Amino acid sequence: MTIYVDAPLTPDQKELLRSSAPDEAFVFRDELAGEEQYNALLKADVLLGNPRPVEWLKAARNLKWIQLYSTGFEYYSGIQLPAVVTNMRDYYSEPCAETMIAGIMALYRGMDALAVLKKEKQWVGPPIRQQLQLLHRKKVIILGTGNIGRRVAKILSGFDAEIIFFGRTAPDALLRSPEELLQKISWADIIIACLPGTDETRGLFTRDMISRMNKGALFCNVGRGNLLADEDALAEALASHTIGGAVLDVTAAEPLPAGSKLWNCPNTILSQHSGGGQLAEIEGILELFLENLKRYKSGQPLKNQVHFDRGY
Amino acid sequence: MTIYVDAPLTPDQKELLRSSAPDEAFVFRDELAGEEQYNALLKADVLLGNPRPVEWLKAARNLKWIQLYSTGFEYYSGIQLPAVVTNMRDYYSEPCAETMIAGIMALYRGMDALAVLKKEKQWVGPPIRQQLQLLHRKKVIILGTGNIGRRVAKILSGFDAEIIFFGRTAPDALLRSPEELLQKISWADIIIACLPGTDETRGLFTRDMISRMNKGALFCNVGRGNLLADEDALAEALASHTIGGAVLDVTAAEPLPAGSKLWNCPNTILSQHSGGGQLAEIEGILELFLENLKRYKSGQPLKNQVHFDRGY
Repeated sequence: MTIYVDAPLTPDQKELLRSSAPDEAFVFRDELAGEEQYNALLKADVLLGNPRPVEWLKAARNLKWIQLYSTGFEYYSGIQLPAVVTNMRDYYSEPCAETMIAGIMALYRGMDALAVLKKEKQWVGPPIRQQLQLLHRKKVIILGTGNIGRRVAKILSGFDAEIIFFGRTAPDALLRSPEELLQKISWADIIIACLPGTDETRGLFTRDMISRMNKGALFCNVGRGNLLADEDALAEALASHTIGGAVLDVTAAEPLPAGSKLWNCPNTILSQHSGGGQLAEIEGILELFLENLKRYKSGQPLKNQVHFDRGY
Repeated sequence: MTIYVDAPLTPDQKELLRSSAPDEAFVFRDELAGEEQYNALLKADVLLGNPRPVEWLKAARNLKWIQLYSTGFEYYSGIQLPAVVTNMRDYYSEPCAETMIAGIMALYRGMDALAVLKKEKQWVGPPIRQQLQLLHRKKVIILGTGNIGRRVAKILSGFDAEIIFFGRTAPDALLRSPEELLQKISWADIIIACLPGTDETRGLFTRDMISRMNKGALFCNVGRGNLLADEDALAEALASHTIGGAVLDVTAAEPLPAGSKLWNCPNTILSQHSGGGQLAEIEGILELFLENLKRYKSGQPLKNQVHFDRGY
């Protein structure tokens, strides 16, 4: 069986694949030149990776199984292939959730200010204490009931936080509509947005919602930057201390433009879309691939099956 | 009854005391000059605070009750007074635990580096991702089975961390002696020290233990700086990347001297003994004091009684 790998692997990672599945013939795109790459993909039985351009995948009619290394796959939407397609589903949920909690705790426990003080070799000591806050028992609205939102909730349970979900369909989402969300905004100490980018989430968090937030409340976003109807309204609320702070993994424009007001906002964490990252990112992808390979060979159903044409 | 207050209170906080206990005569050290301070302490019936030098307290034989604003009181160890002594027991546990977790997450999710990047208005983006780590399922040794250690463990449960306690007496402490701790050091991704300052904990964490730590492991300390037998050994391990990082709320000398190597250590959070702090820190102390005052006046047993001579 020929397995075509279209992912940036180190020699060690390639060797891991080969030694874990010694009966298979691995072909690595980055070891082939020019047209060979395309021809090898056409002959492959299995694909690991997200090949570009999209036309190459459309033509790869011999593929029986495609393992993507991403969770999203809107790039391939509508492709009709006889192959089974699997994605990384919830693989990035834990890092994204941890970055949100890390950002909140950085603000509450002064880690951002302390990092700058250390760089400047400046000791402040006791006066820092009275600027700090506790995550313990905070009231939190989580926007989104998917894997990231669930992981955030699990972690917050260790802090005895009080949690309310916003979601259109999940049975345990107390808030179902933007109107219900708006009414509840002032209850929250923290709002954490973990929503995907869809027509319904674009501009969902309005200027009005920002204006209803508590003076000390935090706005956090690890979904899509376009969730905010008006990013400037957030920047103004932060600059004027109308709200307590923000943890932003995503922004309307990325890289964040040099002229963005957010660079100057106080009590603001900008994590630069690093939320899904981790040291062993590639190793985790290979692990899922090898588990699915075992399942594929023994005729078991594969993990994380999705459909290009349906979009999920 | 005369109540001597040796704590830095705002006018509002002093007024809160006076209005909550209008029958008592409050004397505030910071309103007295020179020798008056000492003489007022000698005459007082009740003390709220931690007076220095230690000789002053030794001489205050008229005191019937001492409410410390700290949890630890090794500074007064061995003092024999007829007074009842109460401390803040677990009051600082939650903030201390949260600062430890905040520091660990700051290192794992890059918050310290991101804070500096924001200050410099510098966008790095994707390359950050592969420097990040997850707290999820990490192996953690917690030194100390008191309130801070327990809170740390509770929070870590939200991350599905694997936890082992070091403690001399607690039934669930798997590691009982420094020898057993030494043997287990290399198992840990994270070591979090939450030990009080006693003769037994001084120098407990040896140079040998540091040398047995994993390359990526973190050393965290929210107990006492003198837990480390050799602070320089830690600084050297950090500087040479022999270990992964450190979160230090306490150090051998505080304020940290300008010449300390720790200022320059990579992957190091210096929280400047702010771990116990929070916005309403003083209010919480006054709340306990006023509750104990009510108990004292009505002859009920006081909360959080400790013994100078026993050390707990």
